[in-house]
Amino acid sequence: MKNLLNEIETALKSLDYPQRPEGLYEPIEYILSAGGKRIRPTLALLAYSLYRDDFQRAMPAALALEIYHNHTLLHDDLMDNADVRHGMPTVHRRWNANTAVLSGDTMLIMAFRKAMQTDCDRKEELLQVFAQTMQEVCEGQQYDVNFESRNDVSVDEYLEMIRLKTSVLLACALKMGALAADAPAADAQQLYRFGELIGLAFQLQDDYLDCYGDPAVFGKSIGGDILCGKKTFLLTTALQRATPQQHAQLLAAINGTNLDNGAKIKRVLELYEDLNIPQLCHERIETLYSEAETVLSQLPLPAERKQPLYDFARRMLKREK
Amino acid sequence: MKNLLNEIETALKSLDYPQRPEGLYEPIEYILSAGGKRIRPTLALLAYSLYRDDFQRAMPAALALEIYHNHTLLHDDLMDNADVRHGMPTVHRRWNANTAVLSGDTMLIMAFRKAMQTDCDRKEELLQVFAQTMQEVCEGQQYDVNFESRNDVSVDEYLEMIRLKTSVLLACALKMGALAADAPAADAQQLYRFGELIGLAFQLQDDYLDCYGDPAVFGKSIGGDILCGKKTFLLTTALQRATPQQHAQLLAAINGTNLDNGAKIKRVLELYEDLNIPQLCHERIETLYSEAETVLSQLPLPAERKQPLYDFARRMLKREK
Repeated sequence: MKNLLNEIETALKSLDYPQRPEGLYEPIEYILSAGGKRIRPTLALLAYSLYRDDFQRAMPAALALEIYHNHTLLHDDLMDNADVRHGMPTVHRRWNANTAVLSGDTMLIMAFRKAMQTDCDRKEELLQVFAQTMQEVCEGQQYDVNFESRNDVSVDEYLEMIRLKTSVLLACALKMGALAADAPAADAQQLYRFGELIGLAFQLQDDYLDCYGDPAVFGKSIGGDILCGKKTFLLTTALQRATPQQHAQLLAAINGTNLDNGAKIKRVLELYEDLNIPQLCHERIETLYSEAETVLSQLPLPAERKQPLYDFARRMLKREK
Repeated sequence: MKNLLNEIETALKSLDYPQRPEGLYEPIEYILSAGGKRIRPTLALLAYSLYRDDFQRAMPAALALEIYHNHTLLHDDLMDNADVRHGMPTVHRRWNANTAVLSGDTMLIMAFRKAMQTDCDRKEELLQVFAQTMQEVCEGQQYDVNFESRNDVSVDEYLEMIRLKTSVLLACALKMGALAADAPAADAQQLYRFGELIGLAFQLQDDYLDCYGDPAVFGKSIGGDILCGKKTFLLTTALQRATPQQHAQLLAAINGTNLDNGAKIKRVLELYEDLNIPQLCHERIETLYSEAETVLSQLPLPAERKQPLYDFARRMLKREK
């Protein structure tokens, strides 16, 4: 695993950035070298490694996924007007909004071109799942935007949004790795499903940690989602389970301006407790994770071959940051 | 030709836009149905028709080009803060900047996916020239931005910028049409070169008309490039040919704040006259056009087969709007 991560970092560092025109490629190199967990390329290489040992052959697909993911971060940060990413100023802050648009567009194109360099028999299928996934991620982002101005987002709507915004790219990473290795079509599909499930679990974990994580480990302050009124699994579940009275109290706490931040977070967390939300969220994560394990266990490969993928998923989900 | 244009409009109208999420696809349908000359898809279908009669087979490639071109318009209008396009409010005006970013990204992805639907043996080559061209267009846009803050842009730098920003996409359109028809590699390359040349001529014509066109026909007021200090073929040539005194006068007129708009335009046009710029621009357009005709004449196909492409290029260039 460590080995894979090193190889990914090395490959990212050796990407060739044209020197000119000035100002186009610097932000791309900047964001790609700023760090991150490299989850998507790792998943692609792990899926490939289920079938073959020469994982460098899947590296173009792996890099394409990481370039694409960073394109979404760049444009999302612009749209969210975020100041910091991985402890560094965001591209539109360090440069400007126009640079963020154009360098971001260039990254999307570079991601396609990198994926096209994958040397495999099923490149067309590989490109198709990649491109379809990209469009789904845009759809997820649009749902996320639309949800900001709504108080009636259902849990199912929320789950579909995060499936599109987060899960399908993890699923796609696994499928691209499998396709690059010329895995059987049924395997590629099962790995896709595995990715969707761990992606959902991963995002619910994120929602959970935002309220109940250890701030020292989690790396951001607690309750941020509550303060910006984000429709999370916790909030949509709470609103759906609340009595009319609790529903009104919850909306008052989330949208109210008569409470300071600390009091607002405290009030919402009290209501979450009353409604058993932390437990429900925890259970849902466990259910998704065990469903994912079942899918992986059914993949017709020797257990020891699948161990690294199990381990990675477990580390992703038991993570505290 | 009329026939091709009708077919393109019909195909654009029958594009399938998902109904959800709300707000993502409406701006895409809006900009794609707002009109335009459909030059790029027409060039693709004309190139295809040099070799085969069933031009509908090249329609996915043609539509991909038009979707991509409109993606660039959408994001360029956002970056330029433009209010109007084809007589209608731009997407970021009618909706907002974030919508322009995200719907624009989606169009770039849709363009790729549409190009992938082209049914031909050389799809990989077709996708490669398309993706490479997209990246070059981003580079051209970045050069254009960089030139805004420079007074020392050479004519050659300017020509390279418009080659990237405008010409390569026309060239790519012709090459994609040829590849879709399985034309010989040498032919595809010659058509690419033909596209580059008419693209350059087309852009110089645009520069020329901005100063010397009939505003009633040209559709915008005269001298807009002068007022915003745009580095055009006219200005870069003038600055390069000017005596030190004329050079200073020209920069004073372009950058000066002591002249009203009418006086500024008049002064710059006087200096252009002194330096013989209109004539030089006209000659350069003629040279490029006749070079383009030579390239096309050398394409080993019957003359009557090539006539529609000649005619289209001539109409593009002798156009007064």
